Amino acid sequence: MRHCIATVCLSGPLEDKLAAAAGAGFGGVEIFEPDLIGSPLSPAAVAARARELGLEIALYQPFRDFEAVPEERLRRNLRRAEAKFEVMHELDVSTMLVCSSVDPEAVDDDALASEQLARLADAAERHGFRIAYEALAWGRHVNEYDHAWRIVQAADHPALGLCLDSFHVLSRRTSLSTIDAIDAEKLFFLQLADAPRLGMDVLQWSRHYRCFPGQGVFPLADFTRRVLDRGYSGPLSLEVFNDVFRQADPDRMATDARRSLLVLEEEIDGLRSSMPPAARLLGYAFVELGVGPASAADTQGQLHALGFAQVAAHRSKPVALWQQNDVRLLLNAGAAPGAGIAAIAVESADPGACARRAQALLAPVLDRSRGPGEADLAAVGAPDGTSVFFCTTASRWPSDTWLSDFEPVLATGGVKPTGIRGIDHIALAQPFDAFDEAALFYRSVLGLSPLDSVELAAPAGLVRSRAVVNDTGEVRLVLNVPLLGDSAGEQLRLQHIALSCEDIFATARAMQARGLRPLAVPANYYDDLEARHALDPSLSASLRELDLLLERTDCGDFLHLYTATIDGRVFFEVVQRPPGYTGYGAANAPVRMAAQRAAAPDRPLAATNGRRE
Amino acid sequence: MRHCIATVCLSGPLEDKLAAAAGAGFGGVEIFEPDLIGSPLSPAAVAARARELGLEIALYQPFRDFEAVPEERLRRNLRRAEAKFEVMHELDVSTMLVCSSVDPEAVDDDALASEQLARLADAAERHGFRIAYEALAWGRHVNEYDHAWRIVQAADHPALGLCLDSFHVLSRRTSLSTIDAIDAEKLFFLQLADAPRLGMDVLQWSRHYRCFPGQGVFPLADFTRRVLDRGYSGPLSLEVFNDVFRQADPDRMATDARRSLLVLEEEIDGLRSSMPPAARLLGYAFVELGVGPASAADTQGQLHALGFAQVAAHRSKPVALWQQNDVRLLLNAGAAPGAGIAAIAVESADPGACARRAQALLAPVLDRSRGPGEADLAAVGAPDGTSVFFCTTASRWPSDTWLSDFEPVLATGGVKPTGIRGIDHIALAQPFDAFDEAALFYRSVLGLSPLDSVELAAPAGLVRSRAVVNDTGEVRLVLNVPLLGDSAGEQLRLQHIALSCEDIFATARAMQARGLRPLAVPANYYDDLEARHALDPSLSASLRELDLLLERTDCGDFLHLYTATIDGRVFFEVVQRPPGYTGYGAANAPVRMAAQRAAAPDRPLAATNGRRE
Repeated sequence: MRHCIATVCLSGPLEDKLAAAAGAGFGGVEIFEPDLIGSPLSPAAVAARARELGLEIALYQPFRDFEAVPEERLRRNLRRAEAKFEVMHELDVSTMLVCSSVDPEAVDDDALASEQLARLADAAERHGFRIAYEALAWGRHVNEYDHAWRIVQAADHPALGLCLDSFHVLSRRTSLSTIDAIDAEKLFFLQLADAPRLGMDVLQWSRHYRCFPGQGVFPLADFTRRVLDRGYSGPLSLEVFNDVFRQADPDRMATDARRSLLVLEEEIDGLRSSMPPAARLLGYAFVELGVGPASAADTQGQLHALGFAQVAAHRSKPVALWQQNDVRLLLNAGAAPGAGIAAIAVESADPGACARRAQALLAPVLDRSRGPGEADLAAVGAPDGTSVFFCTTASRWPSDTWLSDFEPVLATGGVKPTGIRGIDHIALAQPFDAFDEAALFYRSVLGLSPLDSVELAAPAGLVRSRAVVNDTGEVRLVLNVPLLGDSAGEQLRLQHIALSCEDIFATARAMQARGLRPLAVPANYYDDLEARHALDPSLSASLRELDLLLERTDCGDFLHLYTATIDGRVFFEVVQRPPGYTGYGAANAPVRMAAQRAAAPDRPLAATNGRRE
Repeated sequence: MRHCIATVCLSGPLEDKLAAAAGAGFGGVEIFEPDLIGSPLSPAAVAARARELGLEIALYQPFRDFEAVPEERLRRNLRRAEAKFEVMHELDVSTMLVCSSVDPEAVDDDALASEQLARLADAAERHGFRIAYEALAWGRHVNEYDHAWRIVQAADHPALGLCLDSFHVLSRRTSLSTIDAIDAEKLFFLQLADAPRLGMDVLQWSRHYRCFPGQGVFPLADFTRRVLDRGYSGPLSLEVFNDVFRQADPDRMATDARRSLLVLEEEIDGLRSSMPPAARLLGYAFVELGVGPASAADTQGQLHALGFAQVAAHRSKPVALWQQNDVRLLLNAGAAPGAGIAAIAVESADPGACARRAQALLAPVLDRSRGPGEADLAAVGAPDGTSVFFCTTASRWPSDTWLSDFEPVLATGGVKPTGIRGIDHIALAQPFDAFDEAALFYRSVLGLSPLDSVELAAPAGLVRSRAVVNDTGEVRLVLNVPLLGDSAGEQLRLQHIALSCEDIFATARAMQARGLRPLAVPANYYDDLEARHALDPSLSASLRELDLLLERTDCGDFLHLYTATIDGRVFFEVVQRPPGYTGYGAANAPVRMAAQRAAAPDRPLAATNGRRE
């Protein structure tokens, strides 16, 4: 299918939007009228630019409120349409979108609407153009696609057809059954948008919160399949009004948009899809952490206290391998201060297939400089800049894997493990404008499933948090973003690595014996915990002693502790997860963030945000 | 009345919230439970800190979902309440808030609710405490205050009364008449919050969009007066959940909050208020502009082309006075680059009264360094850092006014005016977290009326814009803010000064003759204008020739043009306003912003927003 995108989805002046769309591999665009009117490029110059870029101009929407108006008003509308037809010749676009009227002057008269749209179609036909009529979800009299279809049927004009916009249909939960009755040649255009389910009026919802397919909750694969099954052969065209997207980098957003259509097509095509399928992930091969030189000793001390030992050094890079059982952490202690989690490596039975899928889904493939004889690791860049590696770690070492790039170091004495068995999850702070993009990236590229977003109260504002997990729970990522831009202070840049254990009391004691000083949890927290639950006094005493947090769940107690923050950026969590529990102790997150804030009182609370001091 | 504020209104750890509340002159606080639980301070230490700061702890809300539950659950709730009563002793607070239950287990049984609340009140009474019951607007069975009142009446317990929260009452448009029937001694507490009218579910509305009194649309003066008329003698206490406020500087927010209560009391008290009334404003005395040295020549050239002449120089500061008719602009050409509009001076018949009112409303009074013999100008700082001066400019110069600080300069030749008659409005970019604060500041301190907010599409995102005006239209300010944080690029820092004229065609021609090069308006704009309106061809030709924008209004044509942007920060607008028109040509703002973007293509489109490159 051809992929198109409406220019309103992207930030910047029209020429940047066109370049971004072409760069992401779109075959065409819908020109959003204000983008054209605000452009210094003439319509002919826009058309020429689009042609150079290999873009078709697939749709133009120059005005609204056309039909079911008094005759005098209709004449004005037709006159205006004639002027826009001239623009369409210059733009080299043949389909004009007309949305159902929201004008208070419009009357509730389907016959009049049909007749007037037919007159517009007559005029369009004389130019070789056609009119696609669309029911806005908040149209004054026509707000369901099946109503628009009755009007188009009654008009019975070859140059008049329907535009279906998934938002207008799915936001109102209109039955899809009428789609099966629409003649294929009357399906002039298909606009796609997803959205989160929000309890607000549909106009605000549509204008501010649409998102790309797969980023919301609408059943877009069903909807689109149904339209395609009728024989629709036009483009799949994205029309997304989103406050965040429209201020983000247009090249990145266009890539995100295009990826959403590739994923949608894969869903629609099912087994017939040519997309390399997501390979099964088996957990983490390693996580690479970068800290500034000033934090090197602290980090090494913390890893030691957590029960890790340095077992190897990279042959060509200043990177050390720390290990406990099969949990491997790479530490680059000469990184830029605050670098944080530089890379995540997931275990896969078929890293090559993972990389091919990532590439097909437009993930940026990273060039790796490697020494002679070093393993060639497939890696892609995630939206927040973290590198994601795909690898297979042999159980026996050395072997022809990434581990062979490391040289064993002499053990400095027997290191007794503390009971860390795996990586439970990794939490990554996302750039404000990459949250939806990141969820789709991990869902599509790694085959993870996004869970519901939650909002967490940090001392300096709300944080939105969303987990993406694989079906076995072996790979879990938590994506965090300040609810409102990046102005809520340093605290929200925090990342963490959560390590799992089976007996957190024993593990915490072993760690404290090795010198770990966990994040201090306020006594008030335990007082409240005791007030809420009838805690066994010895349990309560242990929690207090070990700075453990508890969330009582239907699956049992979720227990966790945190370390101090390294480099103002990264900390560790140690968790004991009850079987079946799929959360992350969200109820305790505000306490954790308050405790972190108390531990770093000099950190700026809030950015000055453009204020003049 | 005592003024209180809930700690949830403010950003930061609990000790910062207490300090901010005390600093702004609040007499007490409500302790929001998560703030206490996340604090390393014990309840007794919190109480001690509050005492030191002169703050009463007026209310504590330790849990929800108390009433109308099965007996076993009730026993757990009572046990928990006992633990919280102990905390209340330490906190030195005597009133506990209990909101109507949202628990799915709660049953719809008023008698049971009454009975169980009476049992809680019994327990509270033994401690010398009392329970304030509040209907949440989204309570499962009890969601109107009159319903809560029936339950409290039926319980008939001396330690059980009502808490009224304006949001829960006014968001549902519940009739206020039952307030008149509530016994004064049963009005235990009054929480105040305003909100904009939003078409969304009430829980989301409440949790994210509340604001301080006077910043929304609720009739808070009526509501509060009604409660006071019943004999309520407790504090006026703000409980505002707002995504923006909770990440802003707590000291500033606390001042804004306190100002809102001062304004509310003035409204309630009417003529009996001790607040110095707002003096009548008569327009602008001057506007002071600061530009970097590199932009000095450009700015002077632009002022010259606009028809201004430099008529005087400040006696002790590097500031020049430029004038045309009675419009006076001060230019500091040695300011920091991008300084922009440093000061606005409003004409007042009684500058002293203005300053006293500003001070009473907690506006920061600015220290002015002035030379010997120079006028003492009263000035306060606006939320965005702009200085606001109050002055009286004598018609004859020199005299004992601010003008006497200036030394006339020799005219460099006859300057022919271009027809500028006044300042139509001044547009100021606001810090993201100061938008509501700014509207309340100008409304209360200067006595201006806020008009409705509008959203404008800039190339790099949406901008929210709100005008505040006096009743004669002689003082108009337009406050602009990026809709989502400060991440939407440099463009949104733009400020401008709009100059008014009576014949914009003549004025624009005179300016062009003097060398003005207006902001280039795209031809597409005029093509669309012609398509929309049957424009007279000669009018259309003049608009194109002079780069004039037109908005056809019910009052006549609003015509305007823009200059190039100086210093990346400030530009001028020239407007011809039809009598009776109260807008600002919002329909043309996107075209203006697109044209500005086209004129400065190197300006960053969007901030990287924390992304790692």
